[in-house]
Amino acid sequence: MNFSNLVSSKYFHLYSFTLKWLCIAAIAGGLAGSASALFLISLDGVTNFREENFWLYYLLPVIGLIIGLIYHYLGTTVEKGNNQIIDEIIQPQKVISWHMAPLVLLGTLLTHLGGGSAGREGTAVQMGAALADQLNKLFPFRAADRKILLICGISAGFASVFGTPLAGTVFALEVYIIGKMRYEALVPSLFAAVVADLVCDMWGAEHLQYSILSTSTISFKNLLLCILAGIIFAMAGWLFNKLIPFLKAYFNRIPYPPLRPFAGGIIILILLLSLNDFRLAGLGLPTIVESFTAVQPSHLFFLKILLTAITLSSGFKGGEVTPLFFIGATLGSALSLFLPLPTDLLAAMGFVAVFAAAANTPLACVFMGIELFGGEHALFIAIVCMTAYLFSGHSGIYTSQLIGTPKHLLWTAQKGKHLKDL
Amino acid sequence: MNFSNLVSSKYFHLYSFTLKWLCIAAIAGGLAGSASALFLISLDGVTNFREENFWLYYLLPVIGLIIGLIYHYLGTTVEKGNNQIIDEIIQPQKVISWHMAPLVLLGTLLTHLGGGSAGREGTAVQMGAALADQLNKLFPFRAADRKILLICGISAGFASVFGTPLAGTVFALEVYIIGKMRYEALVPSLFAAVVADLVCDMWGAEHLQYSILSTSTISFKNLLLCILAGIIFAMAGWLFNKLIPFLKAYFNRIPYPPLRPFAGGIIILILLLSLNDFRLAGLGLPTIVESFTAVQPSHLFFLKILLTAITLSSGFKGGEVTPLFFIGATLGSALSLFLPLPTDLLAAMGFVAVFAAAANTPLACVFMGIELFGGEHALFIAIVCMTAYLFSGHSGIYTSQLIGTPKHLLWTAQKGKHLKDL
Repeated sequence: MNFSNLVSSKYFHLYSFTLKWLCIAAIAGGLAGSASALFLISLDGVTNFREENFWLYYLLPVIGLIIGLIYHYLGTTVEKGNNQIIDEIIQPQKVISWHMAPLVLLGTLLTHLGGGSAGREGTAVQMGAALADQLNKLFPFRAADRKILLICGISAGFASVFGTPLAGTVFALEVYIIGKMRYEALVPSLFAAVVADLVCDMWGAEHLQYSILSTSTISFKNLLLCILAGIIFAMAGWLFNKLIPFLKAYFNRIPYPPLRPFAGGIIILILLLSLNDFRLAGLGLPTIVESFTAVQPSHLFFLKILLTAITLSSGFKGGEVTPLFFIGATLGSALSLFLPLPTDLLAAMGFVAVFAAAANTPLACVFMGIELFGGEHALFIAIVCMTAYLFSGHSGIYTSQLIGTPKHLLWTAQKGKHLKDL
Repeated sequence: MNFSNLVSSKYFHLYSFTLKWLCIAAIAGGLAGSASALFLISLDGVTNFREENFWLYYLLPVIGLIIGLIYHYLGTTVEKGNNQIIDEIIQPQKVISWHMAPLVLLGTLLTHLGGGSAGREGTAVQMGAALADQLNKLFPFRAADRKILLICGISAGFASVFGTPLAGTVFALEVYIIGKMRYEALVPSLFAAVVADLVCDMWGAEHLQYSILSTSTISFKNLLLCILAGIIFAMAGWLFNKLIPFLKAYFNRIPYPPLRPFAGGIIILILLLSLNDFRLAGLGLPTIVESFTAVQPSHLFFLKILLTAITLSSGFKGGEVTPLFFIGATLGSALSLFLPLPTDLLAAMGFVAVFAAAANTPLACVFMGIELFGGEHALFIAIVCMTAYLFSGHSGIYTSQLIGTPKHLLWTAQKGKHLKDL
């Protein structure tokens, strides 16, 4: 009961821990936030340029070939992307090459230039983690500290690219292991996320705002409706999770890797032209925003799953998350024809819940829902995200994820395995 | 890649799991929500009655004696309270006696009748968990399922007594182990929390509303200020954590247990009369509300720590959490004289952060902050709660808590130990 303890000796470690990680977060967050800002601003430019120059779509196969060549000749050490970062957190092998950052940035911008269907989080997370990991060349990080450093990089990248620091903090803690969260990196991850988000804002990068104008309160009926919606969102996420490796196996039959995104580009181009629906290309942000106010056609989410799976499985670059937002928001919007809940609420719930199902990060998705749509609908968001997480089973977009706590007692034998080994 | 998987065989477990826990949550949540409503409504009555009948304060020692006699002769199997529930989750021994529910309800109401300084969460959690555990007498629960059942009871009690279902969901997952969260009970815990909160509302029990009217945005300066505030809130929580066992050791020198709360009652009565400050008695809700609008004197939080520690360590009943809200809100309010942040924001941050430091439940406290004060200040709340969690070190009000992930690498040797064994 010695109060001086708190300000001295025993608790001194906590002060030095906090100061140390505040400094590291300032550097890692500053780098990731700046990289995200550069990415967001260029991506905006690239997307506008494509929309003004329709002929760029015809270049998609060639762009695919270029990305394929770049990664084949310059990027073999970094081509595993997000999974490589997860592997390094679970079992540290060696510092991630800084090449990961410029390559994924270039690859993603090229993908979007030609109208490939991809997202942003993969790019931001890879830039954030690869840049943070370079600090190992300046200071000697112990293995346990390097793990926290990589988590900070993920957190900073995610937080800054979406403008959601709390979601970034928790995403980085949830993403490498399913069903278990450990808090040793909680405070460093938070610091990195806050700094990165602030720095990204300082560069003038902007994030879209969404809003739920309808008001709803939780009732027994709404609880059941949310569970039902969560199961449907989980199915969409599950389909996405399964379709990518399924298609990848086909593309991998092409022996020369650079030709895979070339072939993928041809298929995407044919699909876009025959469907004559260019909302499905690129990020698709206008459609996501529209889902909140106008009921979307119910096939749209399925086509987006297909196009994104082809884009990513054939070797184009970019993240999975913005397409997942698109899939969820349009599916939710379409569901409002069948479920007696407001369109904007269902679109918002789908937005985060399909992501929760695909990434196995339910709490990060709840925080993301709160940061993007406000706290009033937190409980609706939580019910669908947690249900969707449960119902996607042991599947996910990050196949290096470790199963920490199986989602069902009957699957206990899968504990400790990676998703890719199932 | 067989889509029928999702709706059949392999995923059938998930449907039955969901349906099973939805039914159990309906019962456990219904019981806990009703118990919380009964408790909240009676507590309101008892508090009003005390405030209208000043002479009741003089009965506090006698009331203490009555509580002591009741627990000594009828409650020896349930007197460990919250710690007993945590012990059963960590290492199941035997079903908790249903006596826990009426005894803690009666004990808490008597404590508040005489003006003891205590809270509500302990009572609600004990009623919720003890009632839920009685389901074991109707159905055979496997050990793993009984653990989830107890988590549901905690979640339902917490959610309904504060009107914060998300905080309840996460609190129940965070409370038995420090620095680690496992998701096997995530969805059941959520269901129980939602049902309990709905049922409690249906009975007409009301929860106080708080609001932050000021607007603030995160900046580098505010980040540092929040970290500083978090450290100060952690010190208050730490002092509370340490003072209770310290004083308990003194009270335990009285050989006949029923005399301990009698002695405690005399000390509290003398303190209340000599300080002539009856805001410190009972829950103190009006002072908590006032902290948001008027700067509170800086000694108030310390006196509340002292009075609550005497109340609970001598054997009165009730929770720790509402006093922690009082301590945090008044301390935060007082801090606004020294830190350039709005009074209402500092009061709100203290409200949840001292609780995070004392209970070691940072994410539950962030959700609580969002549910009580809205989502706009979520990041402020998160920074102080997570910092406060870190800086309370390995101390806490629930001494049965297991250390799952040590808060600092240098304390790795304490992993797997209970707080009480340190």
